[in-house]
Amino acid sequence: MKHLLTTVGLDAAAIAGLLDVADHMSEINSRQVPKVPALRGRTVASVFFEDSTRTRLSFETAAKRLSADTMTFSVSTSSVNKGESLRDTIETLSAMGVDAFVVRHKSSGVPAAVTQWTDAAVINAGDGWHQHPTQALLDAFTITRSFGDGNSMSGRRVAIIGDIKHSRVARSNMDVFVKLGAEVTVVAPSTLLPPGGLPAGVLSAHGIDDVVGSCDVLYMLRMQRERMDSALVPELGEYSARFGLDAARAARLPAHALVMHPGPMNRGVEMLVDPSTLPGSRILAQVTNGVAVRMAVLFTILGGAATGLSQGDA
Amino acid sequence: MKHLLTTVGLDAAAIAGLLDVADHMSEINSRQVPKVPALRGRTVASVFFEDSTRTRLSFETAAKRLSADTMTFSVSTSSVNKGESLRDTIETLSAMGVDAFVVRHKSSGVPAAVTQWTDAAVINAGDGWHQHPTQALLDAFTITRSFGDGNSMSGRRVAIIGDIKHSRVARSNMDVFVKLGAEVTVVAPSTLLPPGGLPAGVLSAHGIDDVVGSCDVLYMLRMQRERMDSALVPELGEYSARFGLDAARAARLPAHALVMHPGPMNRGVEMLVDPSTLPGSRILAQVTNGVAVRMAVLFTILGGAATGLSQGDA
Amino acid sequence: MKHLLTTVGLDAAAIAGLLDVADHMSEINSRQVPKVPALRGRTVASVFFEDSTRTRLSFETAAKRLSADTMTFSVSTSSVNKGESLRDTIETLSAMGVDAFVVRHKSSGVPAAVTQWTDAAVINAGDGWHQHPTQALLDAFTITRSFGDGNSMSGRRVAIIGDIKHSRVARSNMDVFVKLGAEVTVVAPSTLLPPGGLPAGVLSAHGIDDVVGSCDVLYMLRMQRERMDSALVPELGEYSARFGLDAARAARLPAHALVMHPGPMNRGVEMLVDPSTLPGSRILAQVTNGVAVRMAVLFTILGGAATGLSQGDA
Repeated sequence: MKHLLTTVGLDAAAIAGLLDVADHMSEINSRQVPKVPALRGRTVASVFFEDSTRTRLSFETAAKRLSADTMTFSVSTSSVNKGESLRDTIETLSAMGVDAFVVRHKSSGVPAAVTQWTDAAVINAGDGWHQHPTQALLDAFTITRSFGDGNSMSGRRVAIIGDIKHSRVARSNMDVFVKLGAEVTVVAPSTLLPPGGLPAGVLSAHGIDDVVGSCDVLYMLRMQRERMDSALVPELGEYSARFGLDAARAARLPAHALVMHPGPMNRGVEMLVDPSTLPGSRILAQVTNGVAVRMAVLFTILGGAATGLSQGDA
Repeated sequence: MKHLLTTVGLDAAAIAGLLDVADHMSEINSRQVPKVPALRGRTVASVFFEDSTRTRLSFETAAKRLSADTMTFSVSTSSVNKGESLRDTIETLSAMGVDAFVVRHKSSGVPAAVTQWTDAAVINAGDGWHQHPTQALLDAFTITRSFGDGNSMSGRRVAIIGDIKHSRVARSNMDVFVKLGAEVTVVAPSTLLPPGGLPAGVLSAHGIDDVVGSCDVLYMLRMQRERMDSALVPELGEYSARFGLDAARAARLPAHALVMHPGPMNRGVEMLVDPSTLPGSRILAQVTNGVAVRMAVLFTILGGAATGLSQGDA
Repeated sequence: MKHLLTTVGLDAAAIAGLLDVADHMSEINSRQVPKVPALRGRTVASVFFEDSTRTRLSFETAAKRLSADTMTFSVSTSSVNKGESLRDTIETLSAMGVDAFVVRHKSSGVPAAVTQWTDAAVINAGDGWHQHPTQALLDAFTITRSFGDGNSMSGRRVAIIGDIKHSRVARSNMDVFVKLGAEVTVVAPSTLLPPGGLPAGVLSAHGIDDVVGSCDVLYMLRMQRERMDSALVPELGEYSARFGLDAARAARLPAHALVMHPGPMNRGVEMLVDPSTLPGSRILAQVTNGVAVRMAVLFTILGGAATGLSQGDA
């Protein structure tokens, strides 16, 4: 694996391989000194053309735990870059000696374009409505490890609620969850379903009430306020009424069901109950697992030596 | 000690214990390689909801000298956070694996609130008008070490000049200095004295001229320009005339007296003389000692092993 | 060498000495683990009063490869600092324990002023129209190593094209190139030649066509858009027509000639051809060499031990 641009090229075996490495990283993170020398001297550059402090810090924490150096290049959305200057930026940083670029951009396809301008590895940290592959991997890791199902999601019923059309999280998750054997159902206003249809094997339902009583995983997406402004979704209160998770719906969840959200949550919009009161919430576990999964991706892509993961070496 | 939120819970013995550890840290900082492995693998997150580059860099320098990793989360004052999103921010960072949060916020009590949302240690780096405990510790360290008084300020006359009412520095310093035995006198316009009265044992005087000839320490506070706009203080020139330190007043200071300021100085407002011309100025020593004291606080709170402080191990 | 403020005080032997150290650093950068412990425990502070992410990251990468800690102090141009507060900023950072300041400022002479306020080393990372000494060193390194000429530029014909008057890059490069024996010709609109005349030994020509067929090095400067607004240069298209590098002119370059640019390029203004299509382009090599040269400068100024450069020690 040279880059991680999309989940599409990853088959179930490749996904399982990454999740197994993430188990190892989770063990490292539980040590008193959660730091190993596996990537000493390597440089990981975060190049974020769209703000996401949480994702950037997750990747940078992952890099530091493997003893890599980090370099941050943040660009405010206002100073939008033309294609050429984006290329010059990547070529310049690459010439300084970057081993991996972690790229977020509001336009789909930018991480793939970056691979043409550097010999370094490129990891997609979210591009437009397209893909967010490490999110899907950390979600699959969280689900399979919560249920003790090995690397399989076979027979697990996962409901994804919200703006499927514009969500890179939904797109990546549907792909990975189906490959691992899950039965995925999406729940969205009809205006927020993908115009080209759903991936093979993915079902749809009309409201959260259709799935809440029977799912193994209830995956809530963040509702972007700009969608509401654009009249793609009904008025806020109506959206919450049909698609939000409130206490009454949470009470109908099966006892073993997980509640997940990629963050940051819109409390009062899609999240109408305090998730810290839900025993099935895995929202903070997703964050913790995000560091382990990103360590696994960096380690695998940069070809770290397995000996660099042993205890006390950092 | 799990957190450092306020000086109020610290008795003289606890303060002395921290100052003794800071002596050790000062020695480390004087080495050719001022870096020890005491906190390797620990992560210290600076979460600043109010700009303060100098305080943030002081804490981050302290963390790096102990070989901790640092994570910076800065929020501009404009994107003011609601309570819930502040909580989500802390919970998210905590889930990534933070061992200590260093928190600054314009509202009193926020660092204390943060302790409810994380198992990590929380250090108050200044909250509203409430407290700035590491400032008080570094000031006590600077005064006692300048005079060679051990950990006692017994009988030392300290005058604090300026906006006592709105100053977290004054509040923390009055508390610590009195506990260590100092005789503290505050000098402020009557509109800038605390409405609830002064702490037990603290006196007040009317103008800087009442104290300048007889104090051991002259502690100048920063005058916030917004106070002047709000008519709480007299016109600028009048304030400087009655409360500013000029060359004539500096000449009246006892030969052994110290001049201190928490920074950043308003030259031309409260500071009318160039402090680099004053032999008693300890303003830069305060900055230097700030790193040592913050190392002592991080080391003590995070339970670093004493063996991690020995030379050449980092 | 205590500081690096300007190239003016460096004679050819001193320049050669730095370039020789940079060879060593290039070798380190080619290792699998490009990191040595030479400056462990030292702190390098980047103090940038003018934005330049590329230069800042180059210095910080250089510092990290030598295992120094880095501290970043960025000031937006809008919050312009008065002399006194600049002094207080430097004194404060210095008191925290900075070993070297890397300073960029829009006003000439600021790095020199900084040396009065700290005992730390000061490296000029570009001041106004004055100097950019590490740029000149990395350019000399790139040219001499490309030609295999040792540390001499004797007889090499270097043409520098663009806004000579306002360019600190041109000023530093003319000085260094002439000292190393090059024949330097500048090509600029007459309004953009230095009013005080050119340095001894530097010639001028009227248009890029006068030099493109016979130079060994074609050095393109960045055209600042604000110059065009101020009517100091002809209309954009006219400037490009007379001073821009297009494919036809590139085809007239001698086969061995190098094309260089300090970055960032203005594609479509001075750079009308994609430099990645030019075999003689050294634009990315300049970036790569910039890290090595800055490592050499930091190492030399901070007096790192040669034993700290050996393999596997970091």
